[in-house]
Amino acid sequence: MLIRMRASATMGQTNAVLSCIEKSGCTARTVDLPYGRYIAGPGVGREAVAGLDGAAGVEWVRDGAGPALAALETNPDGTVVPLGDSLVGGETIAVMAGPCSVESGDQVLTCARFVAAYGATVLRGGAFKPRTSPYSFQGLGTEALKWLREAGRAVRLPVVSEILDPGDVEMSAGYVDCLQVGARSMQNFPLLRAAGRSGRPVLLKRGNSASIEELLLAAEYILLEGNPNVILCERGIRTFETATRNTLDLNAVPVLKGRTHLPVIVDPSHGTGRREAVAAMAKAAVAAGADGLMVEVHPDPQRALSDGDQSLTPAGFRQLMEAVRKIARAVGRKAPGEDASPFEKARRNSAARRGVGWGAAG
Amino acid sequence: MLIRMRASATMGQTNAVLSCIEKSGCTARTVDLPYGRYIAGPGVGREAVAGLDGAAGVEWVRDGAGPALAALETNPDGTVVPLGDSLVGGETIAVMAGPCSVESGDQVLTCARFVAAYGATVLRGGAFKPRTSPYSFQGLGTEALKWLREAGRAVRLPVVSEILDPGDVEMSAGYVDCLQVGARSMQNFPLLRAAGRSGRPVLLKRGNSASIEELLLAAEYILLEGNPNVILCERGIRTFETATRNTLDLNAVPVLKGRTHLPVIVDPSHGTGRREAVAAMAKAAVAAGADGLMVEVHPDPQRALSDGDQSLTPAGFRQLMEAVRKIARAVGRKAPGEDASPFEKARRNSAARRGVGWGAAG
Amino acid sequence: MLIRMRASATMGQTNAVLSCIEKSGCTARTVDLPYGRYIAGPGVGREAVAGLDGAAGVEWVRDGAGPALAALETNPDGTVVPLGDSLVGGETIAVMAGPCSVESGDQVLTCARFVAAYGATVLRGGAFKPRTSPYSFQGLGTEALKWLREAGRAVRLPVVSEILDPGDVEMSAGYVDCLQVGARSMQNFPLLRAAGRSGRPVLLKRGNSASIEELLLAAEYILLEGNPNVILCERGIRTFETATRNTLDLNAVPVLKGRTHLPVIVDPSHGTGRREAVAAMAKAAVAAGADGLMVEVHPDPQRALSDGDQSLTPAGFRQLMEAVRKIARAVGRKAPGEDASPFEKARRNSAARRGVGWGAAG
Amino acid sequence: MLIRMRASATMGQTNAVLSCIEKSGCTARTVDLPYGRYIAGPGVGREAVAGLDGAAGVEWVRDGAGPALAALETNPDGTVVPLGDSLVGGETIAVMAGPCSVESGDQVLTCARFVAAYGATVLRGGAFKPRTSPYSFQGLGTEALKWLREAGRAVRLPVVSEILDPGDVEMSAGYVDCLQVGARSMQNFPLLRAAGRSGRPVLLKRGNSASIEELLLAAEYILLEGNPNVILCERGIRTFETATRNTLDLNAVPVLKGRTHLPVIVDPSHGTGRREAVAAMAKAAVAAGADGLMVEVHPDPQRALSDGDQSLTPAGFRQLMEAVRKIARAVGRKAPGEDASPFEKARRNSAARRGVGWGAAG
Repeated sequence: MLIRMRASATMGQTNAVLSCIEKSGCTARTVDLPYGRYIAGPGVGREAVAGLDGAAGVEWVRDGAGPALAALETNPDGTVVPLGDSLVGGETIAVMAGPCSVESGDQVLTCARFVAAYGATVLRGGAFKPRTSPYSFQGLGTEALKWLREAGRAVRLPVVSEILDPGDVEMSAGYVDCLQVGARSMQNFPLLRAAGRSGRPVLLKRGNSASIEELLLAAEYILLEGNPNVILCERGIRTFETATRNTLDLNAVPVLKGRTHLPVIVDPSHGTGRREAVAAMAKAAVAAGADGLMVEVHPDPQRALSDGDQSLTPAGFRQLMEAVRKIARAVGRKAPGEDASPFEKARRNSAARRGVGWGAAG
Repeated sequence: MLIRMRASATMGQTNAVLSCIEKSGCTARTVDLPYGRYIAGPGVGREAVAGLDGAAGVEWVRDGAGPALAALETNPDGTVVPLGDSLVGGETIAVMAGPCSVESGDQVLTCARFVAAYGATVLRGGAFKPRTSPYSFQGLGTEALKWLREAGRAVRLPVVSEILDPGDVEMSAGYVDCLQVGARSMQNFPLLRAAGRSGRPVLLKRGNSASIEELLLAAEYILLEGNPNVILCERGIRTFETATRNTLDLNAVPVLKGRTHLPVIVDPSHGTGRREAVAAMAKAAVAAGADGLMVEVHPDPQRALSDGDQSLTPAGFRQLMEAVRKIARAVGRKAPGEDASPFEKARRNSAARRGVGWGAAG
Repeated sequence: MLIRMRASATMGQTNAVLSCIEKSGCTARTVDLPYGRYIAGPGVGREAVAGLDGAAGVEWVRDGAGPALAALETNPDGTVVPLGDSLVGGETIAVMAGPCSVESGDQVLTCARFVAAYGATVLRGGAFKPRTSPYSFQGLGTEALKWLREAGRAVRLPVVSEILDPGDVEMSAGYVDCLQVGARSMQNFPLLRAAGRSGRPVLLKRGNSASIEELLLAAEYILLEGNPNVILCERGIRTFETATRNTLDLNAVPVLKGRTHLPVIVDPSHGTGRREAVAAMAKAAVAAGADGLMVEVHPDPQRALSDGDQSLTPAGFRQLMEAVRKIARAVGRKAPGEDASPFEKARRNSAARRGVGWGAAG
Repeated sequence: MLIRMRASATMGQTNAVLSCIEKSGCTARTVDLPYGRYIAGPGVGREAVAGLDGAAGVEWVRDGAGPALAALETNPDGTVVPLGDSLVGGETIAVMAGPCSVESGDQVLTCARFVAAYGATVLRGGAFKPRTSPYSFQGLGTEALKWLREAGRAVRLPVVSEILDPGDVEMSAGYVDCLQVGARSMQNFPLLRAAGRSGRPVLLKRGNSASIEELLLAAEYILLEGNPNVILCERGIRTFETATRNTLDLNAVPVLKGRTHLPVIVDPSHGTGRREAVAAMAKAAVAAGADGLMVEVHPDPQRALSDGDQSLTPAGFRQLMEAVRKIARAVGRKAPGEDASPFEKARRNSAARRGVGWGAAG
């Protein structure tokens, strides 16, 4: 159950709605988002809200399981997520790049330098790695987060890293500008709630067998914590085809753009698992309307501790960025690194005014 | 990296191996299982164990990412998991039955009474529900666990319930005899580790897009915590077919039986999502060689707060049990509720002697 | 569009309906089946049949694309397909066994002898092989059909073989008792029509990416040619899982049994692609309610020209048959080779009276 | 088995190889392609070609089931397929557009006029429609082919249409410039062979559950008939996702480009099944490196007899073409309708000289 309060609703009217729900033995809470005030109660049934439909201050009462806060009509202007000095979902294509795993302070700094030089807007790097096998490298944890933050500061880029355990979210949020919920965790509901409460933007990757509807409902879990800054990421689904590691589903880009106001980025590295296909799919993603990319790079992919086969070399990343710039312009977007237009600046200011942005970590 | 110590290895030899690994800057730890002592170190590279292959007390050193502890050759006799007074993986077919969600003390007790009467060997019931939509019923949490335990005690059946958050594992383990890691959590590695450390048997469900290899590797995470009592559960994979909620993959049963010593059960309720197909697939599962079943029942499925479409009525469950008994005998197994044979009793005693069993919760 | 004529409808009334449709520029034709007379016209629109709904002799007019003739309610007693002296869909489990490819007269006769000895009811053997690669063995064609027929006669079993080209159907129908439309051809509509017109029973395999609905619609193409003798076969679908060649979808058995009156058999050889899983899945198929099995055997699987990995040895087939007999009895069916019950004999006679059976080929 | 003869091989040497194979009881035949002379024999075993490896005139002997003639290394310059006055696989992006079904002479001519005006290079239109349900519109057959040819002539565009039955191939080849083998027929081997022998270029669509390897092997069947003019088409695969009709797998574009010399086009209409996603995926396809597009249009999609939901209006098609032109230039290709560059003209002339082109039909 979800209730939308009118913009004119008073505190008293809101409290009256909450009391009414509690009287029927259910619990509910207020959710404030840039686009309105909502009252939500998981599992609150139809009876508990009977009579609230025309109540004072209530705009509508909705009784259904589908995405609501994430739905396009909730915020038709689109959500722009501020990440450090950059935006995701605005006019400019965002590019998040960095190593699959942070392997050392040197390695991530080397990566940071070249991705920044070639135009990346966000630095990525894994500290807690979800690995299919317990015998594979599991990431360097908190130490890696520190190195990542330092590298980000050195090149003045915001940083993003994956979280796995709800118990680590608060700590991680102290180091990074954006928390990534990975594909395997897309339906880890305690983690989604913790990420929602962290005060950090959340990059939410589509599970490899998740439908688009399920991705939106996972985002809804985060939004219901009052966190408007959710970035969706298509990164490949599991199909019968084995020529690629996953089947990057670019169809999700136009479908999501028609259903949600949240920014949509694409990860062609995990999506294909093959270095030689990454650039082609990165270009295709931008052509399809994606707001950004997430790409794995490594100074020496053959020695990478994880995912070397899909990591780009520095030279490969530079070429990819040149190609992406051309496609960005061909579809009327700003390429990464291009100056923001006046229109874009206005959106950025407006985002800042709404208080939906956070500065660089720390 | 995994090292198997000889049965004759001394404490000193084990410590020497650990020291040797730590000297190269890696960490490793001892894992004791009924079938041997192992030393494991996630991400420990080939260099760190160079020279250990012929070391004193070392049986073998293995450098690979595939399943090892879960592999059939590690314990060719098969693992039998004790659950209360019953066994899973022995001669007798186990049947875990109960409501999808524990909705009230009365509801779960009603269910407990009829499933016990018709021959179930374990009572199931959901307290923490992983729901695709945040607007769906999310389970009654700790309260539900208490009701479940009481119902189990009333009918003298051990109980199993799902965990979602590593932070809830210890608390949940205080109420239940077996912790369920659900399909959506199969690759929730912090949860697998916490379940492994809980001291409780773990029912591990296959993710809906997980390969059989990935299921075994998820089990490996639990075994590496020194917990031998893992039960695998096939519950349907995601395919293009929409006539059933999932595609119950019974092929997994013979394939798993050829690859692992762990017991394998089947959940035809989630596997098909359709009440009218549950009995047919339950029979097929036992015919294919499954060690047991997990089935959802409800005194009044149409009023169930979750998964009513796939829940059996009491009468439906009774019929299913009768049919399953016939199939069990046709494949040379004991039907649930049948007296254990002398051979079975011996296995049970042997399991008890190995100290791998836990009593009823609390 | 499909029209069902009343049992009492006169020839004149039928002709009046046909004329009425032709007047509107469409074409339609009469389809006579054991369960009634129908008038069908592909693509005949709603306008063309306006006014026919209450016309003399018309029972109903249906305007939809779903399965109609194949639907369970069309023939709730179930269709029993006569194959030589045996029946498919009756009380007795049918077992079709033989080599993947007919490789020589000796090879197929050897197979025929042992499958007949162990209780098979139909002899299978491939003459025209649909092979993914043009460099693989393509089958021995007409020569193979002759050897197959001779082997069938020698052991008094009806024979089934696959057709690929509509141009070969009439010729093939001269040699075999049953025409198989393989998985790759399930939506080869010219072939379905030709098989329908052949006067032979048709074994229709589910395509590896075909939904159950699509399988029924493929059967509908055959039924619409006035051929009631369609046997459906589940043989595995394509999923992400690679541990088995295909994912045998036994869920299809209860789903089909709830939707159609046509017999349903299962092919665990192609369904799993692994010899060691064939027997388990064969048992499971019968437990799930299948009316029969199709199994590949070979006197020396390692030397088979195709599909050796999934072919059973003679000893393996004998064991399988013993196991299947036990399951058949456990689900209240007659095992292959058991004497027909009086009830069964009555159905067989009734089938013969309806004129829906054909004798052994040639 | 495949043998490549040296460029310098004499007729006598070729005949000697053929005789040698025939002596061992196998059959083989010569295949002449622009890139060399080959001798092929399906199912010819290793023994039959023993000793041929160093024989006079023989370049190599290959014993394997994978794609060979279709492999990139066989023709690293790439194959350019001439279609009327245009080329597929050259510098210019090809656009094949037209109605799903030819519904009347007027309808296809209307379509032809606007697609030609907006820059399409080939006119498509269905005459024989493979329909899941026998109750759906099945196409107007030969009559439709005539209307299509006339419309093509009127606007000076080559035409392409689907074939279903090997028996119709020769007739169809008399009307169209290019024969389409649809997704459902990708493994209809008799049809592939007939299309190969037709002397017409063949547009081969990937089956909805076909791997990329299987697509190449299907092309191999056509090439082995001596027909070099095969165009591959990605049109969506079947996955669990239901938000789109199929999952258009653009990953196939870079993967195919890395494995084969054949041109690759993309059909975003069937690939997504949703009009609003067609333009985004068309742009993405060209960005990913596709050589062309196939798009369904209709003057009035809501009244289309088939696939109206995915057909573009004239205005929608014009917008798509404008967007595609921008992307084409951004990736260094010529947009449809742009004058060919001198380099392109040279390729075209070279293609003509090789005798691999056919003029407009009839």
